[in-house]
Amino acid sequence: MMESTLLLIIEIVGTIAFAISGIRLAAAKKFDWFGAYIVGLVTAIGGGTLRDILLDTTPFWMENGWYLAVTGISLAYVIMFRKQLVRLNSTFFFFDTIGLALFVVIGIQKTIAFGYPMWVAVVMGTITGAFGGVVRDILINEVPLIFRKDVYGTTCIAGGLIYWIMIITGASPVIQQLTCAATVILIRLLAVKYNWSIPVLRNN
Amino acid sequence: MMESTLLLIIEIVGTIAFAISGIRLAAAKKFDWFGAYIVGLVTAIGGGTLRDILLDTTPFWMENGWYLAVTGISLAYVIMFRKQLVRLNSTFFFFDTIGLALFVVIGIQKTIAFGYPMWVAVVMGTITGAFGGVVRDILINEVPLIFRKDVYGTTCIAGGLIYWIMIITGASPVIQQLTCAATVILIRLLAVKYNWSIPVLRNN
Amino acid sequence: MMESTLLLIIEIVGTIAFAISGIRLAAAKKFDWFGAYIVGLVTAIGGGTLRDILLDTTPFWMENGWYLAVTGISLAYVIMFRKQLVRLNSTFFFFDTIGLALFVVIGIQKTIAFGYPMWVAVVMGTITGAFGGVVRDILINEVPLIFRKDVYGTTCIAGGLIYWIMIITGASPVIQQLTCAATVILIRLLAVKYNWSIPVLRNN
Repeated sequence: MMESTLLLIIEIVGTIAFAISGIRLAAAKKFDWFGAYIVGLVTAIGGGTLRDILLDTTPFWMENGWYLAVTGISLAYVIMFRKQLVRLNSTFFFFDTIGLALFVVIGIQKTIAFGYPMWVAVVMGTITGAFGGVVRDILINEVPLIFRKDVYGTTCIAGGLIYWIMIITGASPVIQQLTCAATVILIRLLAVKYNWSIPVLRNN
Repeated sequence: MMESTLLLIIEIVGTIAFAISGIRLAAAKKFDWFGAYIVGLVTAIGGGTLRDILLDTTPFWMENGWYLAVTGISLAYVIMFRKQLVRLNSTFFFFDTIGLALFVVIGIQKTIAFGYPMWVAVVMGTITGAFGGVVRDILINEVPLIFRKDVYGTTCIAGGLIYWIMIITGASPVIQQLTCAATVILIRLLAVKYNWSIPVLRNN
Repeated sequence: MMESTLLLIIEIVGTIAFAISGIRLAAAKKFDWFGAYIVGLVTAIGGGTLRDILLDTTPFWMENGWYLAVTGISLAYVIMFRKQLVRLNSTFFFFDTIGLALFVVIGIQKTIAFGYPMWVAVVMGTITGAFGGVVRDILINEVPLIFRKDVYGTTCIAGGLIYWIMIITGASPVIQQLTCAATVILIRLLAVKYNWSIPVLRNN
């Protein structure tokens, strides 16, 4: 009970962080409120939606209205307090990282529950965590950030592989999930602190 | 019988109007006939296709060949009469608006028929009416118009909310649909006449 | 047995050719290894994935891990031997053409197996062969090449129509498939040799 409540709070916070990241980029592109709402929503639910389409199940947000509501609250928040947002960048980064970790875990859990092999679960965890940002960048007509700078995608993969290792070693589900989440959070923090990046593919 | 025939005619006319809007934008980008056909097709059927994928049912155009045929006729029409098209802009706007209204109604009806709550139906009505134009703009590599200028998206939402209110007030299905369609058409006409727009999200 | 082994080899070779085409374009855009892998993967499996989503069946690559593995090998190959790649352009073109022909045949076969009419199968064969390149171009933020220069898409359609004709004429499945594949390969080679192109849609 306590745990599920905690997970729900984390998911809401993560959704808000993802939505706000999309809304702020939309603002930088002079989108109107509707466009900003859609970009924020897609950033927050896009990854899980593709995952559910690939798993051939009903997209999660169609069974629970608060994802759309929370995105609306995020938009109202950005509209009212946009001048203060910059000061909160580190806070958003923190929530965004927690949210990413949870989204990866949720994506892996759901895929395992559908009976797919673990390598598919790792792919779905990565899609759940990273695909929303890809659609966000396509909608604002930019080359997806995670393909050039961020280690976002590889961080999701690493978290998924740790999850897999924990299963092989016979750890309990809770340990599997916590280790996966901790890995995602740790790598993300270290990547920013030490400015990690994936080698660029040279073409000459 | 009469009514279903009328609806079919409206749907064909709306499909043509959507397809031509996509084909003309493709022409402005120097697409070839194949590219123009695909952009026109996606503009006309893209919204309903995403709706059907999210509802986990067979995309409507896979069960009836005339959507592809009508798009081909639209392309042939643009190729042959492109010089006259500009003079017909208000006609196209009229058909496009009628089509939009019908697409929103169809999207809402289908979602209700699948047993989803009304808020999902409003989302699906909006997707059915507006998503095709988003994919169109992605394919021609432009920022989606409805995120910055048009009130297209919010018009679909408004029509859906009216539909919802009509259900709550216990109006008959026909009244629900006509009121929704009339709302979409009215708002669209007023938006153009009085140059309505959604506030732009400022980022400083 | 022999035949299925041959088909598997052709599919692997085609997948590698498609993946490498995506990886090289990603390299030209200074993508990192992760981004290049994703673009290569999407180029190789994107068409079949959309086909399977539209057919409402599990995407083919989720049931067989080697598509992701082969894409990884393709990336490693490009990283190690990128200087030699230019010399191999005609080889890649050859593999890419063989792969395209096979992908079209696979897409048509699968759609027929699902009981859809032949016109849907032609659409699915075209999607299987050509859609991956469209997503590739969207991800690198370019206007899809096949909408302006290449005859790629129309070649897939032509192959599908020949397949259809072969069915009408009562040819055996093997003949249907070989004729379709031969048509795709022949048209592609002639298109390049004689610099064929689809008429551009003028807008003035």
